[in-house]
This record gives sequence, C-alpha cells and structure tokens, in this order.
Amino acid sequence: MRWAEFIAVDWGTTNRRAYRIGNHGNCLDEFEDDRGILSMSKGEFAGAVADIRVRLGDLPLLLAGMVGSRSGWVEAPYVECPAGLDELAAQLTWVEDGGAAIVPGLSIVGDTHADVMRGEEVQIFGALAAGLIPANSFVCHPGTHNKWIGIEAGRIVDFRTVMTGELFNLLRERGVLADLIGDDAWPGDAFRAGVRRGLGDCTLTAELFTVRARVLLGQLERGNAASYTSGLLIGADVRLGLDLARGSQPIVMGRPELTHLYAAAIAEAGQSAREVVGETAFLAGAVAIAGRIE
Amino acid sequence: MRWAEFIAVDWGTTNRRAYRIGNHGNCLDEFEDDRGILSMSKGEFAGAVADIRVRLGDLPLLLAGMVGSRSGWVEAPYVECPAGLDELAAQLTWVEDGGAAIVPGLSIVGDTHADVMRGEEVQIFGALAAGLIPANSFVCHPGTHNKWIGIEAGRIVDFRTVMTGELFNLLRERGVLADLIGDDAWPGDAFRAGVRRGLGDCTLTAELFTVRARVLLGQLERGNAASYTSGLLIGADVRLGLDLARGSQPIVMGRPELTHLYAAAIAEAGQSAREVVGETAFLAGAVAIAGRIE
Repeated sequence: MRWAEFIAVDWGTTNRRAYRIGNHGNCLDEFEDDRGILSMSKGEFAGAVADIRVRLGDLPLLLAGMVGSRSGWVEAPYVECPAGLDELAAQLTWVEDGGAAIVPGLSIVGDTHADVMRGEEVQIFGALAAGLIPANSFVCHPGTHNKWIGIEAGRIVDFRTVMTGELFNLLRERGVLADLIGDDAWPGDAFRAGVRRGLGDCTLTAELFTVRARVLLGQLERGNAASYTSGLLIGADVRLGLDLARGSQPIVMGRPELTHLYAAAIAEAGQSAREVVGETAFLAGAVAIAGRIE
Repeated sequence: MRWAEFIAVDWGTTNRRAYRIGNHGNCLDEFEDDRGILSMSKGEFAGAVADIRVRLGDLPLLLAGMVGSRSGWVEAPYVECPAGLDELAAQLTWVEDGGAAIVPGLSIVGDTHADVMRGEEVQIFGALAAGLIPANSFVCHPGTHNKWIGIEAGRIVDFRTVMTGELFNLLRERGVLADLIGDDAWPGDAFRAGVRRGLGDCTLTAELFTVRARVLLGQLERGNAASYTSGLLIGADVRLGLDLARGSQPIVMGRPELTHLYAAAIAEAGQSAREVVGETAFLAGAVAIAGRIE
C-alpha cells in the first residue's frame, strides 16, 4: 500500500518539524515546536504523535531522526553503511499496525572508526533524489552534531560526527565562558579570526580558555566573544572535514544560519562550498521514501 | 604589622577551604564547604566572610582564588608575569580596613598568548618556599582548569590554561554523553586507551562523539565510558603540556585524585611525573605571603 497523502516528521533532540505532504509531493501544511525527544518521557510519545495528527490530519506518519533512537518512541535499528535509499526504505520500523513508520539511522562499524547518524540520511537521499547534489559528493551537515558525509554512486559510504554545535551550546549554558558568549555568532572578522586559529594545530580546550583571558585582559571585545568562539570550534571541525574530503569541494546542507557559518569557515580555509537548504532536502527525502513503501 | 595567627582561605568557583594557621605556620583548624563564588551574589560575601570567623576565630584573613575575581568579593588586579612571591605579597588588595587581604591573580599578556590564573600561584610559591619543587620547574596543576606553569629562578615566567576539568563536568551534566559518563574516572585500561587517542593529532569534538557511537555499537563498555572520555581530554591536555615542557620532567600538583590521573597520562606518553599534594603547598604559600606583610 503506497501512501497518497502523509505526514513527515523530522523529530530531533530539541525540536520537531512536521509537514503534511500532498499526493504530488507538495507541502500542504506544517508546524515546528520544541517537543524534541529530550522534552518527553517514553510514555508521552503516543500522545505527542496523536497531537501531530490533530494539527495536520489523520494520515500515515513517516518519522525520522532521534525519535527512532533508544531514547525515542520506538528504537529503529541502524542500517550499516554503505547504504542507499533502497536499504533505508526496506528497513523501516513499523508501529501502530502500519499507521506509522520510523526511518532507521545509519551506522559505521569499523575497527578504527565507529559512528551513528539519525535524520541527516533523509536529507541526503532527498537531495540526491531531487538532483540537488551529485551522486558522488562530500557533504557537510551542521547541526547539534555536524556530520561530514562521503557519498559514492548515490550511497552513503562513510561519515564522521563532530560535536561542534552541542559543545557551543554547553559552553553558553554554564561555566566560565557562559556570560561572555550568549550572543549569536555571525561570520565577520571575529568569527574568521577564530576559524583561522581552529584550522591550525591547536588544543581546543586550551584555545577556549583564551577567550575568557583575552576578554578579561582587554584583547577581545566582549561583543565578539561568541563569534570568535564559534569560529574556533567550526574551524577545528572544518580542519578535520577538509582532511576527510581529500580535495572534493564540500556541499554544506542544513539550516541556512548554520550553513552560512560553515561556508564562511571553508572559504577561510581557501576553498568554496555550495549551500543547500536542509528543509527542501528533507521533504524530497520523505517523498522518496514514502514512494518506496509497498 | 606582621600577622601572628591568621586564617587562610582557598576560595574557588565551586568550593572554599579555610584554615586557621598558628604562629609557627601550623594548621590549627580547618573546614571545607561548597560556598564557592558561583553560589553567592556580591552582597553575600561580607556575611560569608563573617561566617568563616565564627567557625575559625576572629583573626585576619588571607583570601586567595576566584574570590578576588570580577565575580568575587572585591576584584584584586592581576600581577603580570614574570612574577615571584615578593610581587605577589606587595600587591595584596586590602579590605575591611586591613582586616583581610586578597591575593592578586597572575596574568600573561602577550601578542600570541593571553592567560590568567587565580589561586594556583599561592600553591606554586608555597611549594617553592617549602622546597617541594626546585626553583626551575615545569608544573602541571589540574583542576576545573588545568595549568601548565613554567618557573624560572623561583618566578612564574609563563603558563597556559586548559579547560579539561570544566569540559568533562559540562559533558557529564548535559548532552548526549551525560548518561554514559557519570562514573568516576580511574587510571585503568580504558583511561589509558583514551589518553593514547588524545595524545595523537585528533579533533576533540569528533573524538568525544565516538564515545557515544562506540557504546551504542557495542565497542565500548558503558562502565568504561567515563574513564575513556577523561583519558581523551587529559591526553589532549598532556600533549600540549609536554610540548610546552620542552623536555623538562613535569611535576603534577593538586588534589591527589586528579594528580594520579595526570601522572598516569604522562606515563602513557613515555615520561614520568612526580606528584605534590596541593593542600600542603597552599598552606606553605599562605604562610610565606603572611610572613611578608609589613
């Protein structure tokens, strides 16, 4: 039974975004709220799912992201890479007697590197299906956890997670930098100075403390501390990513306010990066998966 | 007026330790509690100081640590390095009409590096005065913020702060590693494996995420995750420190549970490190400063 209309949900750690998708793959209605998986206990998911249908219609649901993790509604086991859209669509975890499907995450299980992904894979396969990125690509997907993703022949062959966004958020909430870096980061001079430092061979835990020292000693303006710190973390992240890229030009996909920062950091490293809006890619990915449901 | 008996307080961000010191430099009484500077507002310091006298006696007070920072009781301006015990004792900030003195912090103000220290300097000059470390030394002082400290002819000439302890604590409180790394770290196999990884040319924000991935994929036992993560952070810290040491054998000074971890990490890097108990050094430092009050 192939779905006509359905609801696709990008359900992450801190937020969820839900879209009602029409039978031509068009978005008919949508909402976003802060009911990410960390905001609810196991027993609250059934109600949170019912609430989505109240708001967008009594339709089948395709759920992606951390909702399928051990801390989510129902665990959807990882599919091991290399993996493409077909493997993903074939290994959905069905709940509610077929009324809802959870997209599996992807894993890398190697001797030297192990990694996991949940949610970004839908955007990647959507971007491939919609022709937004070529079948052989190297994608940077910033977010709470940035991912550098290697794609060959339309399949994800390797990826690497960097906790850049999470660390920046932790530092803003508590500790000695919290009162200095509450502003939004923007890609100006202070950001680029941080990026240059992060791109070098540096110890992040040491560089982070210099932010406080330099503000106290009058070497860094307080209003620039957030941008400098963001630049430092993103610079170290981009250093790793460009090393993994081995010369490919990265494509940066995700929320525009983050892709702008990463593109600016990649430019500071002397390369250029095309940006793709993650939401567009997610909708294309949800439609591509739903189209493969038998 | 030289003090006979007095009270010395090591007043940090999260804790304070107060000692009543007799006229032979011996410790007569002491207590420790969690009334660090972050636990109180500006207006509460006078009362918190009065409480120390209620508990240990109506005596002059020598206060060291974050109590002299901008967020503390009264700001005691930094003394710029190179600096020795004489500069430190000559630049006390007096409060309560001479009833209490706050030890200044130290700063490094360079073009390529800026840094600040508050509290560790008393231990360093105490250890020097008591002959616990030689006049030319390279000291590692772990804590919320680890310091690598270069000492020449009994003066602190350079230092570098690494936010290892603070970052470990932030990661334990919130975020994707929090539920995995609540245990105490101990210097066993998992710790040493983390150290080896941290000693290499790695991106900490990427390595940290592998802890979660490896636990989820069954490659790392949950019970070892805290030790591995601690090893990773301390390994990266030691990599920087041994680079700064330029071949000197480091001396690790501080709380024994932390100096053991750093000594184990330094051993994993193929060097050996002598450990000095920070509390002993602090008492010697307080006595040395009090002895210089005119």
